[in-house]
Amino acid sequence: MAQSKLPPLNVVDMGSFHVGGRLVEISGRPIKEVVFSPGSAPAKIDPNGNYLVEQMYVQYFIPKDVKGKLPILLWHGGGLTGVTYETTPDGREGWQNYFIRKGWKTYVSDAVERGRSGWASPDIWPTEPQFLTVENPWGRFRMGPGNWSDDSTKRTQFQGSLFPAEGYLNFMKQVVPRWTTTDAATIAAYTELVDRVCPCVVLVHSQGGQFGQKVAQARPDKVKALILVEPAGFGDPAKAAALKDTPILTIYGDYIDQDSRWPTIRKTQLALNQKYIDAGGSVDVINLPDIGIKGNSHMLMMDRNNIQIADLIEAWLKKKGFTR
Amino acid sequence: MAQSKLPPLNVVDMGSFHVGGRLVEISGRPIKEVVFSPGSAPAKIDPNGNYLVEQMYVQYFIPKDVKGKLPILLWHGGGLTGVTYETTPDGREGWQNYFIRKGWKTYVSDAVERGRSGWASPDIWPTEPQFLTVENPWGRFRMGPGNWSDDSTKRTQFQGSLFPAEGYLNFMKQVVPRWTTTDAATIAAYTELVDRVCPCVVLVHSQGGQFGQKVAQARPDKVKALILVEPAGFGDPAKAAALKDTPILTIYGDYIDQDSRWPTIRKTQLALNQKYIDAGGSVDVINLPDIGIKGNSHMLMMDRNNIQIADLIEAWLKKKGFTR
Repeated sequence: MAQSKLPPLNVVDMGSFHVGGRLVEISGRPIKEVVFSPGSAPAKIDPNGNYLVEQMYVQYFIPKDVKGKLPILLWHGGGLTGVTYETTPDGREGWQNYFIRKGWKTYVSDAVERGRSGWASPDIWPTEPQFLTVENPWGRFRMGPGNWSDDSTKRTQFQGSLFPAEGYLNFMKQVVPRWTTTDAATIAAYTELVDRVCPCVVLVHSQGGQFGQKVAQARPDKVKALILVEPAGFGDPAKAAALKDTPILTIYGDYIDQDSRWPTIRKTQLALNQKYIDAGGSVDVINLPDIGIKGNSHMLMMDRNNIQIADLIEAWLKKKGFTR
Repeated sequence: MAQSKLPPLNVVDMGSFHVGGRLVEISGRPIKEVVFSPGSAPAKIDPNGNYLVEQMYVQYFIPKDVKGKLPILLWHGGGLTGVTYETTPDGREGWQNYFIRKGWKTYVSDAVERGRSGWASPDIWPTEPQFLTVENPWGRFRMGPGNWSDDSTKRTQFQGSLFPAEGYLNFMKQVVPRWTTTDAATIAAYTELVDRVCPCVVLVHSQGGQFGQKVAQARPDKVKALILVEPAGFGDPAKAAALKDTPILTIYGDYIDQDSRWPTIRKTQLALNQKYIDAGGSVDVINLPDIGIKGNSHMLMMDRNNIQIADLIEAWLKKKGFTR
């Protein structure tokens, strides 16, 4: 596949911070003695007190030659972290390096309760987290029909699939536990992030579709463009007009018609896109197979043609006037 | 405090990967239906199958002008992640940027079950994780006597403390839940990391003291120098001779004599250091107050003089022949 030769990486500033979070007080529990490291002195731990929860981790990189007019924020999908954008499971560069190389100030975050954002005790979040087997995402993320199997004779990859299947277990090492009840906290944290570092462009994947659209609807003056990569979560249809001045790009990979869930998920977003258009908004949709790009899984940013897809996104940003 | 003017940051390559991990099979559980994003199609989730657990996340940065002869690996302490080394809680640069600026290939990891390494379900790890109140580390990490209080009139910082107390809650946002029963898995993952990217220099903090020393004892041919920053976990005294060719620097901050636990913790390491010396090893100990550097908490890499401390470490590495 034709992929552009990328400019050199040249990061001249970088760092990280957490946004959001709230204090929750717990009381009435007995004091515990905990030996944190073997051979170390026991520490008296009083479980009563204030816990800081629902904060969100953000790492940023500033390239030497800034060419994006605004920073780009990369928000990952469910059960994952910002690692989604770093390196592909077969060791190629991810979209984080791509956008930095192309001259974008790049912010990558771990959603609330994922990765370096930390998570709260059952006292504070009474619902159970979800854990994924290695078998499950293979089908659900459209790498192949059915489940993954450790026995290579018992798994099938889609014909022409560009997911680097040899790195599938490396991909699964990136998966973290997740709750399904933390959306409001996550939206609050992303909104605080947007208030802190934007105006900006926001690129989201999968579950992030909800967060990107709802945060943009809450802060249309801050989110100047929205890139929805296979959104599996959605904005508020009642607030479609809020996005009339925020151009939106929606991108889908291959094998959707062969999947039990993805036709519905895409249809829901496309109906919402129509509402954005009816309200005066600008929406572009790229179904990759329709423009001759076949073989993409749900993890477009990790597929073998990940740079080709990033080039499409960057060309759209350029066309919309976001580059210098 | 006198701090060196640092060279420019110039990262020309970076990325991340996970090492380690093992598959654990769970069986006999009922199938669940989970709606991962509101409005999305429900997914049938079969909790039976293989879970990938105990992997470890590593992020690396390659500077343009490499001056360290070997890569440096920064391993954080208990209840924290690699974020420890990124940015201080009051927004200054951390030791990660410092070592990159000084020309070191720098690897920062999240220990097993911390941050981007993910964690396992109670089915796989039956013990409970530990959660820290915001009140607790203030005293235990020697920022001041007793607990932190949200009411600034009810907390006391040590006289002359260099911890940036205005960023204390930002620091607490970095704290993640932790288990006390995952040391073997963590050592296995760090050993795999060392096998992959070393020979190297390993710098550890606090709980990492155990991991750094035990991994170096298992791989003395790979870990060429060991920097123990306030180690609260220890190596195996029976394997002291393994480190006879690995020079060790041990560093302690201030206020240790005023603490209930730290005199014991330091004494344990100093006794082990004597065993390293008796076995022919080379050990340097810096008690910072003894050389006139007062005011350091347990979080030396975040204190206001963090660059001064890093300069001491880098000077030691230079003296030991690890720079070009």
